[in-house]
Amino acid sequence: MAATSSIEPHSGGDARICRGCWDQMHVPIPIRGPLALPFRAFGITRSKMNPNICTICERSFRYVKKQSHVAASATILFADIRGFTHLSERIERVRLSEIVSLFQDRCAQAIWAHDGIVNKQMGDGLMAIFNFPIVRKDHAEAAIRAALDIQRHCAEALGRLDLGGPGERPLGVGVGIHSGEVEIGEFSSFRSDFTAIGGTVNLASRLESQAEAGEILVSPETAAQAGTLAAEAAARMLTLKGIDQPVEARVIVKRD
Amino acid sequence: MAATSSIEPHSGGDARICRGCWDQMHVPIPIRGPLALPFRAFGITRSKMNPNICTICERSFRYVKKQSHVAASATILFADIRGFTHLSERIERVRLSEIVSLFQDRCAQAIWAHDGIVNKQMGDGLMAIFNFPIVRKDHAEAAIRAALDIQRHCAEALGRLDLGGPGERPLGVGVGIHSGEVEIGEFSSFRSDFTAIGGTVNLASRLESQAEAGEILVSPETAAQAGTLAAEAAARMLTLKGIDQPVEARVIVKRD
Repeated sequence: MAATSSIEPHSGGDARICRGCWDQMHVPIPIRGPLALPFRAFGITRSKMNPNICTICERSFRYVKKQSHVAASATILFADIRGFTHLSERIERVRLSEIVSLFQDRCAQAIWAHDGIVNKQMGDGLMAIFNFPIVRKDHAEAAIRAALDIQRHCAEALGRLDLGGPGERPLGVGVGIHSGEVEIGEFSSFRSDFTAIGGTVNLASRLESQAEAGEILVSPETAAQAGTLAAEAAARMLTLKGIDQPVEARVIVKRD
Repeated sequence: MAATSSIEPHSGGDARICRGCWDQMHVPIPIRGPLALPFRAFGITRSKMNPNICTICERSFRYVKKQSHVAASATILFADIRGFTHLSERIERVRLSEIVSLFQDRCAQAIWAHDGIVNKQMGDGLMAIFNFPIVRKDHAEAAIRAALDIQRHCAEALGRLDLGGPGERPLGVGVGIHSGEVEIGEFSSFRSDFTAIGGTVNLASRLESQAEAGEILVSPETAAQAGTLAAEAAARMLTLKGIDQPVEARVIVKRD
C-alpha cells in the first residue's frame, strides 16, 4: 500500500447538512453554505468532534435521543503516543506541545475520513467512536481503516522529528479497537457533551495500553466484523487488567 | 474529621464575575445576575469546567493569554473508580451509567469547592487542574483538600450501592496528585478548549493508577507544598511506568 496520504492534511469535512442529526432524527440541519448562516446566529455550528456533525448532536443528546442515554452498537478506538511519559521527562514542554498537536491533528483527520468522531482527547491520547452519531454499518472496518491511516500519517509526521538524544527512538503510536454494545449519553449533571461507557470501552482502552508502537490491536469481535481487513493479522493472546478471560487479539501492523 | 458534607450536593458556584478572566486578565466578565444577560446573548456563559469561570477562559485561550500555550505552575489531580473495568463486565450498562454520573458529580463538586477545574472527564475517570485559570497560591493544598472531599463524598454515595453479587466489594476511588510546571493551552488545530500537558501531568496520572480504593497518592513535590496536610502521611516507594527514578509518594487515606 502506498505511504501517500489518502486524505487532505487539513480537510474540514464537506457535508452540507449535519450527518448526525440526519442519521439520528432525519432532520436536515444546514452546516455549510448560506442556509447555515441563520443557524450559526443561534450558536449551532460544526462540532469539534467531527466537522460533518453539528453542535446539536454534540451537546443536546437528550433532545436528539429523547433520553439521557441509550444503548448502541459501536466500535471504540483508543490511540496514544508510545513512550510519551518517558519523553515528557526529557524534552522541553514546547516541543512536547508540538508533538501532541501533530498527533491530535493527524488522528482527527484519519478518524473523520472514516466517519468516526473524536470523542475525547487526553494529552497524548484520544478516544474515537464509530457508528454514532453518523451511522456506519461497517463501523468495525471503518475504525480499522482509520487506525491504518493514523499509523501511516503519524509515522510520517513523528518520524521526521529530531528528539535530541542519539539514544531516542522515533516516536510511534499504539491503537486498540473493540466493537460491541455501549451506553451513549450524558453521564454527569454538569456537562452536556455525550460520551460512551461500558465494558466495550474499557476493553478497547486495555487493548490500546498493550499495543506497541506501530501496532493496532483489534479484539476478536471487531476482527470478525471486519472481513478481509483483519483476516491475515497475527493472533496474540493477552491478559488484560480487570478482564477475567484472556483475549485473543489480532495484531495489525501498518503497511508501508 | 466529620464525614458530613462540607459542600452542597449541587452547588453551582457563586462568583458574580468570572474568576478566571479576572485572575488572568483583570477583566470583569459578569456570569451571574442581570449584568450577565447581554453576555449570555453572545454565547458567553458559565463554563462546564467550573461554574465560577466563563466560556471565554474555557475556549478562548489564545485571546486570554495572547499565545496558544504558556508555561504555568499548577497542581494536577487524577481520580478514577477502582475496579470499574472488572465491574463493567458484570453489571448492566444502565447501572454503570448511574455509577459514573454519581462519581463525576461528586468529584466536580469537591474540585469546584477548592477552585479547581474539571478539565477532562473520561468515563470513570477525570483530570482536574488547580491554579489555572483561577489563581490559588496554595494549589497543592487545595488539590489535597478536594481529594479528601472526593474520597468522603464518593465513599458515602458509592458505598450505598447494591452491586448485586455477594462477592462484590464496595466501590472505591483512587486519586493521584502532583505539582509542577505544565504547559497549558490548545494542543490541536480543531479544538479550542484548553488543557495541560507535560511530565507533571503524566506523573500525576501514573500515581493515580497505583492508588488503591480510598487512597490519595501525593508526589513529594505536592507534599512539600502542602504543609501539615501531608506531614503525617505514610511514605510509599513506587516504580512508575515511563519514569526512570522511583518516586517516594505520600499516602493520604480519608479520615472518617
